Amino acid sequence: MSVETETATYPVTPRNRVRRMHERASYDREAVHAVLDAAMLCHVAYVIDGQPYATPTLFWRKGDTLYWHGSSASRMLRHLKAGTPACLTVAHLDGLVLARSGFNHSANYRSAMCFGTARLVEDPEEKNEAMRDVIDRFYPQRSALLRPITPQEAKATTIIAMPIDEAVAKVRAKGVGDDEEDFALPIWAGVIPVTTVLGAVEPCHRLVPGIDRPETLSLFPEGGRLDDSLLTGQRLYDGG
Amino acid sequence: MSVETETATYPVTPRNRVRRMHERASYDREAVHAVLDAAMLCHVAYVIDGQPYATPTLFWRKGDTLYWHGSSASRMLRHLKAGTPACLTVAHLDGLVLARSGFNHSANYRSAMCFGTARLVEDPEEKNEAMRDVIDRFYPQRSALLRPITPQEAKATTIIAMPIDEAVAKVRAKGVGDDEEDFALPIWAGVIPVTTVLGAVEPCHRLVPGIDRPETLSLFPEGGRLDDSLLTGQRLYDGG
Repeated sequence: MSVETETATYPVTPRNRVRRMHERASYDREAVHAVLDAAMLCHVAYVIDGQPYATPTLFWRKGDTLYWHGSSASRMLRHLKAGTPACLTVAHLDGLVLARSGFNHSANYRSAMCFGTARLVEDPEEKNEAMRDVIDRFYPQRSALLRPITPQEAKATTIIAMPIDEAVAKVRAKGVGDDEEDFALPIWAGVIPVTTVLGAVEPCHRLVPGIDRPETLSLFPEGGRLDDSLLTGQRLYDGG
Repeated sequence: MSVETETATYPVTPRNRVRRMHERASYDREAVHAVLDAAMLCHVAYVIDGQPYATPTLFWRKGDTLYWHGSSASRMLRHLKAGTPACLTVAHLDGLVLARSGFNHSANYRSAMCFGTARLVEDPEEKNEAMRDVIDRFYPQRSALLRPITPQEAKATTIIAMPIDEAVAKVRAKGVGDDEEDFALPIWAGVIPVTTVLGAVEPCHRLVPGIDRPETLSLFPEGGRLDDSLLTGQRLYDGG
């Protein structure tokens, strides 16, 4: 079952229903998208001949469809025209939570798990669009500035699409969650925040003289948070 | 087949042999461990009733065995005493690589995929040790300072272990890899570094007066790289 219309929440089924720490879970589309759109790296789980694989890959979201690049599943998918079940997961680590008991140690995080059927993108028009999107979703309007893709490159590129059938976001974003009676113990507790940040851009040392950095790269300021840049990039991509 | 002795490399089989970008791959134990030990967050892939799951979770390495906390697979594992095939993957995003063609856009990263059979840790001694290790591997000597774990907490804790049968590391750590003839094009190219860093520690606002931060937390200096802290932590854990 695909989510064809813009409902506020994804359906809840045995596949995505959260059992552990369910108070952290949300099936809300906006909550799921907020986690996905703040990332460019995901992990996709497939099964090939009974063996599960968790493959890290760059991905992007277009409405309720997730796209990613060729992967270990592409050989398999060439033979599975109907597609194969997959799970695409994003997780951001936001903090280390040190409690007064081992049991209450935790982490702050934002995660999203998306379930659906992955298929090869074979339609030439959808594939061309995806090959532009994989650039422009991250680097606004950049694809038009580049040396055009060659037929051989297009042939060597595998793109996989998965409409999100079900999804769930899980978020922990708070301080130490000790048992009430443990707060009185003479034990240090606290949170160590964790952030993924951008460094100073390193221009290619073979740039042709006089080539300036494109203005749109101001989306990635030195010292800025990667997730903020990616969320802004997604809004530009959705809007353009 | 488990790696019982300290061989320099993991065996190469159809399961872990890299086909795409194989020049980035290494089956070397030290290379795999270097990627694993720099992380606390992994993604584990399982299959439950034909459906793959990629579950984000904290994990740690003890020799050639990987351990992690209860997960969606724990219900399944209770019924599968012989264990179930799993794949534990770690990926660090280190940089965004903007090339002169779409095809040569890339990312700098370090990843490791580990394959084996996951099993529940049921032996009380192994489980007690694991419940200490999940603290001390990340926060040196901290378990001894904490309120002891209760029998109910131990019962509510699920620990999963997976000896690494096969593994592969993949690393890209370089500048723009354009086609030779493209370097002459008047197009900007470069690398945007990405780093995951530690923020200022936020002490719990309910600390008992006079409780100082434990000295071992100097392992997590404000502004430091999380991966550096975790690598150092693993060395202390291996040595202790």
